Order: sequence, then C-alpha cells, then structure tokens
Amino acid sequence: MKLATINNCTHLITEAGGVDIARASGGRFSADMKPLLAQLSDLRAWADDADFVFDPSLAEARLLEDLSVLEAPISNPDQLFAIGLNYRAHSEETGLDVPDEPMVFTKFASSIGKPSADVVLPTLTCDWEVELVAVIGKGGRNIPEAEALEHIAGYCVGQDVSERTLQFANTPAQFSLAKSYPNFAPIGPWITTTDEVSVDQLKIGCHHQTATLQDGNTAQMIFSVAALVSYLSKVCELRTGDLIFTGTPEGVGLGDKPPRYIEPGWVIESEIEGLGRMSNRFEVAS
Amino acid sequence: MKLATINNCTHLITEAGGVDIARASGGRFSADMKPLLAQLSDLRAWADDADFVFDPSLAEARLLEDLSVLEAPISNPDQLFAIGLNYRAHSEETGLDVPDEPMVFTKFASSIGKPSADVVLPTLTCDWEVELVAVIGKGGRNIPEAEALEHIAGYCVGQDVSERTLQFANTPAQFSLAKSYPNFAPIGPWITTTDEVSVDQLKIGCHHQTATLQDGNTAQMIFSVAALVSYLSKVCELRTGDLIFTGTPEGVGLGDKPPRYIEPGWVIESEIEGLGRMSNRFEVAS
Repeated sequence: MKLATINNCTHLITEAGGVDIARASGGRFSADMKPLLAQLSDLRAWADDADFVFDPSLAEARLLEDLSVLEAPISNPDQLFAIGLNYRAHSEETGLDVPDEPMVFTKFASSIGKPSADVVLPTLTCDWEVELVAVIGKGGRNIPEAEALEHIAGYCVGQDVSERTLQFANTPAQFSLAKSYPNFAPIGPWITTTDEVSVDQLKIGCHHQTATLQDGNTAQMIFSVAALVSYLSKVCELRTGDLIFTGTPEGVGLGDKPPRYIEPGWVIESEIEGLGRMSNRFEVAS
Repeated sequence: MKLATINNCTHLITEAGGVDIARASGGRFSADMKPLLAQLSDLRAWADDADFVFDPSLAEARLLEDLSVLEAPISNPDQLFAIGLNYRAHSEETGLDVPDEPMVFTKFASSIGKPSADVVLPTLTCDWEVELVAVIGKGGRNIPEAEALEHIAGYCVGQDVSERTLQFANTPAQFSLAKSYPNFAPIGPWITTTDEVSVDQLKIGCHHQTATLQDGNTAQMIFSVAALVSYLSKVCELRTGDLIFTGTPEGVGLGDKPPRYIEPGWVIESEIEGLGRMSNRFEVAS
C-alpha cells in the first residue's frame, strides 16, 4: 500500500486514484497515520475487500507529477533517528572515519517538511543528502535483527539537508542542530508499505535542474535497515511512527574538491526506485 | 506555581495540598500539561481566584518525601534539546574543548522517566549528570535573548544519565544514543513556573547514599538559559512543552582519575534549590 497524508488525513493511493481512509471506512480507521501503522494487516484486509470510489485526481501518477497536495506522511514522530556515514564511499568523501557502530543523531521534529517544501537557505554552505527513511510500525525493544523487518511499516524518501558551517563549528561535531532548520527534513511522497517493496537494492539519488548530485544504491549501505532497527532497539524503545533516516550515499557537496553547496534557485529532485520522488526549491531569505 | 503530573492529569501543588486542574476547573483547563504551559497567565489568574479543596496527601512537603505518585511532568515533548559541556569546570574535567557555541544533542523521548524511576544499568560504565531543565511555554523562532525568558514556562530537575562506553565508541562521539536508555532522563518532581523562581544562581547537585557526587551552582553556566533559548530558536522552531537540558556542573564520574561509575544499588538524589528533588535507584538487569 501507499499511504499519504493529504489535508491532515491519511489516504490510500493507487494507480486508479486516492481514498480518504477514515471517511471511506466510516471511522473504523483513524485519519492519523501513526495508529494506522500499527494495524497494517487489518488495513490491508479492508483495502482488499472494500468497494470504494477513488478520487482520480489523487492517482499515483498525477500526485507524482504535482506533489503540492501531499504533506509529510508523518509530522510528529516520537523519535527521529538519523544515521551518519552509512555508505562507505560517502564516509570516505567526508574525510571522517568509517564507523564501527552506527553513528546516531537526530533531526529535530520542527525540521520535518512536506515533499514539495520550499527551503530557506540560512547560509550558502548547505548540502544535500538524499536518504532512505524507514518508518516503524510495531514498536519494541531488543528486537533481533532477524525479526527487525516485522517492526517496519514502510519506507519513504527523505532529504537530510545539512548546514555544514554550524555542523563543524564545535568539537565534537554538531550533527543534530545543523540538520534541523525548518524544512531541512522533507519526507515523502508517501509511505510505501513493506508488502510492496524490499529495500535491499534500490537506486537512490538526487539531481538539480542541470546536474546529477547523487546516484547510489541502497545495496551500498554499511548497516542494513534490519541491523539499524535491531541496534537502535538495544538502547531505545522504538515506537510506532518513529523515523529512521538511514544515511546518504556518496556525492554530497562537502565531498567535492573544493566543496560546493546548494545555490539559491536550485530545485533538488530526490528519488528512490519504487518509493517515488520529492522536489524541493531552495532560496535565500527574502 | 508548581505543576505536577499525577495519574496522567496535571495537578497544582501547594503547601496545603494538590488539586487536579482539569477537574477543579470543570474542564476549562486541559488535563494535559502541554496546553497548560501555553496559557499560564490564565491558569495563574484562575488559581488565585478559585476556591477549591486541596488534597492534603498531595501537599508539597509530603510529595517531596514520597515521590512515587509523581510522573514525569512532560513525557512527550516534540523536541528535547540537551546541551553538552555548559559548565567550564565540567568541560575541563571531561578533557573535551570548552565549546565556542552551545553543543546540542538530544535524549530520545523513550528515555524520559518519572522522578522516582528505577534505572536498569545496561553496563557498569554509566555516569550521573544532574541538570537544570527548562520547559518552553510559548513557542517561537528567532527569539532575541532579551525576550527569551518570556518563552519559558518553568523549570525542573533532570538527570542526564550517560553510558560512557557507547558515548565514545565512535568518532565523532555518540552523545544522543548513549544518553537514551530507558529512564536515562528522569525529570521532576514538577515544573516550577518562572513567576516563582529565577535560575541565575541556584545550588545544583546530586549524591548517593554515602557521598556527594556533584555540588555546583547554576551561576557557573557558560551559556545562560536565555542564551540557549535564543540560540536554539535561531535554528529550530521551539514548541510548547519542549525541554532543554542545560548541561551539568563538574563532578561526573568520567572526570575522576581513574573514572568511576554508578554502582548497582546506588540511589542517586538529585536536587536543585527551589525546584525540588528526584530519587533514582540504579540496578543491573535481573
């Protein structure tokens, strides 16, 4: 299933069109995304059986063409985990050590944006980082890696926009804050549930109007999504709706010699095979 | 005012006793702490005028003697900011550089515990860090330092329990995760609102059964609470109920030569002048 948030209500998105789940189910299912993620098998059964009328203006292909009605599928996670340096070639391009264990920080919740969010550049040293985002369905703690995928509801595309001056202003480096300006965490276009997609080997990349920025594959991840879920759950109780930004492949601006950054006027398109796309315009403050 | 969470409902705590605010106000005020923090002047006016019956078993002194009914005053902040190395002598004892700018990480929400929470020690390298916690009342962005205190609802005591092995397992250091095991962020006993207390110069410390661990004063902070609110709001939109752990004074176990850590069976009492106390027992997993 593809689950999108539109007008604060969760919608099921199909090739034929979209449907408001709470309305179409007569209130059996919540309009909020979070509780739905904990009852996906019930939702799947209902979606297979129900005889509802789709809104063709919300068909998958039309939404991918015009993302503007789509909100962030989850805007209020209890916890947002972000993983640094989880692709070997990216770790090397930054000049930082390849980590022995997953390197965990957060993006504060006020940075979450919709998939078509406009981003105000606070400086001219902001960088792009397209990422696969895993969404927790069933919470838990001490989850074995072999069972980890049962705890994932689905996946979406994310950008881990990063302000590099602030990030490296301190020792130790300041990951969380420098990645948390408004709309520095656009996610979307929707959550694709795990029954529709496996993320072992998906093309992941981003580009702006005239150039490819990143062109990687999730197969290059150092720690798999299952390994990350298991690792995080050894410390934290994972909760329904928690987000895991799983790291970015090589090709960020910091890795160039000399480094280059997002320029005002750029529209960065971020895409992961099977999960859809986002489109974010970057401008300086007016 | 002193605002405590008991049975999931916000209570006004006085020397004479406690009162369930939602019940006593006939539903005019929410039972949830978060919305109340955005309407403190209304609440103050109501509390001054209302003629309610206090429950003497919830009197301030009795609760401070037996903390067990008190829950974390806020258990679901949108954002929890934690500041590293914000007391010069502590920064020096850790061997880390005194930061030029506030060093910001998070404690993930699942680590929040009540003021009498029992803490399971995941290792024998866990450390204590008593901290002043500021609670945001009115949210905002780009808040000038001179106006910052208007955005603070009040303060409470916090412990920033820290697992040092995991914290320093990576380069750069892993602050957020290593400080986020369950109950590694007990807070309480209640929120004391800013009309009752100024935090410029308060004794702050903790001890266990037989020894003082930390004995500092908030006057030693490098970045004041107002400076922190202003700094954070230049990046993030602060929201009602957000928590800021403002850093710990010297005296942590990591600073000893050789380092020493929390021993099973310790009960750590954390106290800040005027804000009350917490009492947390530490044990290994059974």
